[in-house]
Amino acid sequence: MTSIRTDLAVEAKEIYEEQSQGRIPGVEIREDFESGIKITDVKIVDEVGERNMGKPIGRYVTLEMPDNVNFDRDVMDDVSKVFAKTLSDMVTLDKSMTALVVGLGNWNITPDALGPKVVSRLMITRHLKELIPDKIDENIRPVCALSPGVLGLTGIETGEIVKAVTDDIKPNLIICIDALASRKTERMNKTIQIGNTGISPGSGIGNKRMEISEKTLGIPVIAIGVPTVVHAATLANDTIDLAIDAFSSQATEGSEFYNMLKSLDKDEKQRLLNEILYPQIGEMVVTPKDIDLVIDVVSKIVANGINIALQPALTLDDINKYVN
Amino acid sequence: MTSIRTDLAVEAKEIYEEQSQGRIPGVEIREDFESGIKITDVKIVDEVGERNMGKPIGRYVTLEMPDNVNFDRDVMDDVSKVFAKTLSDMVTLDKSMTALVVGLGNWNITPDALGPKVVSRLMITRHLKELIPDKIDENIRPVCALSPGVLGLTGIETGEIVKAVTDDIKPNLIICIDALASRKTERMNKTIQIGNTGISPGSGIGNKRMEISEKTLGIPVIAIGVPTVVHAATLANDTIDLAIDAFSSQATEGSEFYNMLKSLDKDEKQRLLNEILYPQIGEMVVTPKDIDLVIDVVSKIVANGINIALQPALTLDDINKYVN
Amino acid sequence: MTSIRTDLAVEAKEIYEEQSQGRIPGVEIREDFESGIKITDVKIVDEVGERNMGKPIGRYVTLEMPDNVNFDRDVMDDVSKVFAKTLSDMVTLDKSMTALVVGLGNWNITPDALGPKVVSRLMITRHLKELIPDKIDENIRPVCALSPGVLGLTGIETGEIVKAVTDDIKPNLIICIDALASRKTERMNKTIQIGNTGISPGSGIGNKRMEISEKTLGIPVIAIGVPTVVHAATLANDTIDLAIDAFSSQATEGSEFYNMLKSLDKDEKQRLLNEILYPQIGEMVVTPKDIDLVIDVVSKIVANGINIALQPALTLDDINKYVN
Amino acid sequence: MTSIRTDLAVEAKEIYEEQSQGRIPGVEIREDFESGIKITDVKIVDEVGERNMGKPIGRYVTLEMPDNVNFDRDVMDDVSKVFAKTLSDMVTLDKSMTALVVGLGNWNITPDALGPKVVSRLMITRHLKELIPDKIDENIRPVCALSPGVLGLTGIETGEIVKAVTDDIKPNLIICIDALASRKTERMNKTIQIGNTGISPGSGIGNKRMEISEKTLGIPVIAIGVPTVVHAATLANDTIDLAIDAFSSQATEGSEFYNMLKSLDKDEKQRLLNEILYPQIGEMVVTPKDIDLVIDVVSKIVANGINIALQPALTLDDINKYVN
Repeated sequence: MTSIRTDLAVEAKEIYEEQSQGRIPGVEIREDFESGIKITDVKIVDEVGERNMGKPIGRYVTLEMPDNVNFDRDVMDDVSKVFAKTLSDMVTLDKSMTALVVGLGNWNITPDALGPKVVSRLMITRHLKELIPDKIDENIRPVCALSPGVLGLTGIETGEIVKAVTDDIKPNLIICIDALASRKTERMNKTIQIGNTGISPGSGIGNKRMEISEKTLGIPVIAIGVPTVVHAATLANDTIDLAIDAFSSQATEGSEFYNMLKSLDKDEKQRLLNEILYPQIGEMVVTPKDIDLVIDVVSKIVANGINIALQPALTLDDINKYVN
Repeated sequence: MTSIRTDLAVEAKEIYEEQSQGRIPGVEIREDFESGIKITDVKIVDEVGERNMGKPIGRYVTLEMPDNVNFDRDVMDDVSKVFAKTLSDMVTLDKSMTALVVGLGNWNITPDALGPKVVSRLMITRHLKELIPDKIDENIRPVCALSPGVLGLTGIETGEIVKAVTDDIKPNLIICIDALASRKTERMNKTIQIGNTGISPGSGIGNKRMEISEKTLGIPVIAIGVPTVVHAATLANDTIDLAIDAFSSQATEGSEFYNMLKSLDKDEKQRLLNEILYPQIGEMVVTPKDIDLVIDVVSKIVANGINIALQPALTLDDINKYVN
Repeated sequence: MTSIRTDLAVEAKEIYEEQSQGRIPGVEIREDFESGIKITDVKIVDEVGERNMGKPIGRYVTLEMPDNVNFDRDVMDDVSKVFAKTLSDMVTLDKSMTALVVGLGNWNITPDALGPKVVSRLMITRHLKELIPDKIDENIRPVCALSPGVLGLTGIETGEIVKAVTDDIKPNLIICIDALASRKTERMNKTIQIGNTGISPGSGIGNKRMEISEKTLGIPVIAIGVPTVVHAATLANDTIDLAIDAFSSQATEGSEFYNMLKSLDKDEKQRLLNEILYPQIGEMVVTPKDIDLVIDVVSKIVANGINIALQPALTLDDINKYVN
Repeated sequence: MTSIRTDLAVEAKEIYEEQSQGRIPGVEIREDFESGIKITDVKIVDEVGERNMGKPIGRYVTLEMPDNVNFDRDVMDDVSKVFAKTLSDMVTLDKSMTALVVGLGNWNITPDALGPKVVSRLMITRHLKELIPDKIDENIRPVCALSPGVLGLTGIETGEIVKAVTDDIKPNLIICIDALASRKTERMNKTIQIGNTGISPGSGIGNKRMEISEKTLGIPVIAIGVPTVVHAATLANDTIDLAIDAFSSQATEGSEFYNMLKSLDKDEKQRLLNEILYPQIGEMVVTPKDIDLVIDVVSKIVANGINIALQPALTLDDINKYVN
């Protein structure tokens, strides 16, 4: 079994299927299409599934956006709507209940700034409900938000800040947004994962230790992740796999060459990566050239999706008017 | 007595002295000069002083920077050093004790972004002391920091966030930085106030309600304030005072004209301001044209001053090397 | 006659009318309303009009936006459309003709950054028409754009850069966008002026000397100006006028007091302003607190208006899709 | 011979040497060390050298910065000084002669924004020499600067803008700064190339066609290039080379396996890259995670180096005071 870790359930599934060529025990998968968006609904139902997927029991829905999403506002709105539907489906929340949205990541690092950027585009209403309740429609849900920064900027574990604020203001739901790393370049900035098991320690680009989850915080936690980078080491690894596959396909099965390739790959590949490549590219990431623009688009899509899901009494037009 | 509120003790003192022409009961004042910086040390010693100054018992030191500070890095360093000395003098703190620095204000509004900008230039060490203690000199103090945002961005009272985090991580000292409003344009971005009574509700540009002080948090709170704007209404008010003074000086004392001016001013001025000017300029502020640059310079000065004061084992050169 | 200079024809008109109480010789004025936007069309028809208005012969149309424009995307679109219609009406341009849009101003100073921000939101098509003509609809007009910076940033007169590029690429029309100063706070960021006489030297916030006009460049130049600041000195001046008016209204006409006020005002006011206020506030500006947000909104409105006017073959929806 | 193009003469040299194992005909190379900086001085002296290096006759000096440059202001200053010396050595310029510095690249794309960032940190003096000559020391050289943007932002060829402005203001020297692509990740943001042959069309990240060189502009052009990215395709290519080398080293020379590897590599590799990898990663780049910070540091180093070289009458301290 591979040891390559991935933040995306849909990738864990792919890796399993590549290696085991079959249905994954302990996991239920449903695929769907809506408005050109591929929806993969992965349910890890027991401990066998946990082991196979390397992820805790729970539900992970992945949306794959159409390619033209960066250039067409209508497509962006379609994705926001499907995303909002998925999010609403994930958690039941009475309209008077308070949601706290947490934008994880480092605002100084473009591909890691997704969370804070989403937070900056949300409808924030909790204070209005408290300070001027008469002027706010009673169907508006109280929403508050926080961008806690990262350990290197604050000197405080992100999870500690979120827990402290949660204990104090007692919301009924937490939604976390975080930038992830993907194993495949084609998934970068094109995939949104919505999960109900929280954010696991050490995930993604940043360094987050303390879990943000229902287990640690006592209220439901929805984690929204978008892969915004591929580690350069992942790209190198995949490239070598491709090369080995290509060579193997040229060799006669059973020949000395074929057997050598089959035996070479694992050890040799690791040696190559560890000794030669990692020292140089360990901290490098692969991104599209126009990452600043792309993060802007994705943050709009995610923010609008959250706004729609949290304010069912409003239309997307209402929301667009409110949030400039 | 005037009802014009000011965030700066040095201005409260001036207003009192203008109106009462004399020493302020309950207040001790000491003035000094160092490296071209005027230092005004105001101690409010009892309740009489509190009433006269409109500020709680405590100490408020004001530094007035030389005019050329924006264009000369040596002068900037001088101000940082005098500021660090004042700060160190304000609170006794064992070298192993943890400081939490809080950057108040809205990062989207240039003159209100001072606090977050200062925080972004600090030496953050608390996590390093915890994670890699062997690699960090034992004389380095643990410092952590937070920019909690403002109510309109988060939906959560700033004071609530600060209290929650403080209760959780238990620092030994809090230093808050906030942008203030000044009554005089010449003081804008040229004055630093260091006080030991915390930040009072409703101060400054933003809307902060819950006090951040030793009383509410149980540990010493040093508040650093820099006036970065003058309210347009303040400028209008002062302009009318100037006009009335100028007219009065032309009139013979005791004449009908003189008496009329003296009687007119208060009511008429208020009517003018309230009915005519405030509706238009109530939300307006006066700033220098190059406010973006000026805030950048001031945030460097304040951040360096805090870095020096919190890390007495390091020189300014060490600090400059560390913080890029 | 007043010597107060204003960038806005609509303000020059107001000043004239206040002082002379009547129709302005040499000037034709037409007022209109459309989609809640007040349109004032000022035509200076001869040299008498030039002298009375302090502006060259030509046409100056001012749009005054509704107050809610900052919070409602539909209102923003309405303003863009009325603005586009005014712009199209100002100049006849065959669909194959090239337009060069020039964003004047300093991108480092928020209220002066309007021009560069507008330019960053335009549909730029000239290179596509040249490089991939087969893929571009023939009805798309070639548009190019430039943000030349300001003298202090480049060391080169802005007018020189514009003239050099114009002589080289030979567009058929120039549209300049610049941030102006207004005399009235209520007009700030709420007014768009479209004029066909170019940008006069020394206008606005920046320091522009070399005229950008049909006279200097040989092709039509449309100047779009939005007042984004009021000089603090203007506010002080107006406040004193208000005070004098208020006092005068209390005095019996013909009385000593009344006469004194009437005689005082001009000289005394100038002395006050020159000696006392200007040294302190000469470089200060009055802006709304949330100027960063407001400039963002206004730049979207102006950019969309230009996009609509320059690309009559496209709808606003098409444009929104293209420009992210 | 390889067809892989590189912007760096030092890489062209490496590629040649790898393939041909020997001195490069038509090229003179001198290597040196100063303040921990490796200096490689490559002179292409004739047409044979041109062909071998894929670059025009001229001089290309490469500085390789120490690893700790990002964290130590003294090391930054050392690099600036060595860079300034190299630059001064490249061109003779009377102190009264005017230099135009051109910051190439797209300010919206972090790794491509190096040029505009350098320009924003320069001492701009040309306008002061013209407007207030009496107040400016006569030893100060007139310097002006321009960030012309890129074709996609302006619709105008960058070379056209530079040529138009050059023809108009007639400087005596042009210095261009541009972000390049490197073949090796370890060179990214650690290498500065200073060349005297201008910028060739199609170089680097952007799309620049019209050459900016002494040939096209009639005055000396110094091109400063810093590799800020590695194309993802380059990383993939190099990874495959590494894999093939590793496999080859395991095979007995002359064996079927060995021969197959040797024959496979070129065609198979190209097929792999073209069919499988390029469609996905063609537009991707590899950067360090903290690219925003790194670009900031490098732009300071380059700007200070240019400031020192262009203003020999000033010390680095003077320059630091002037440029905030």
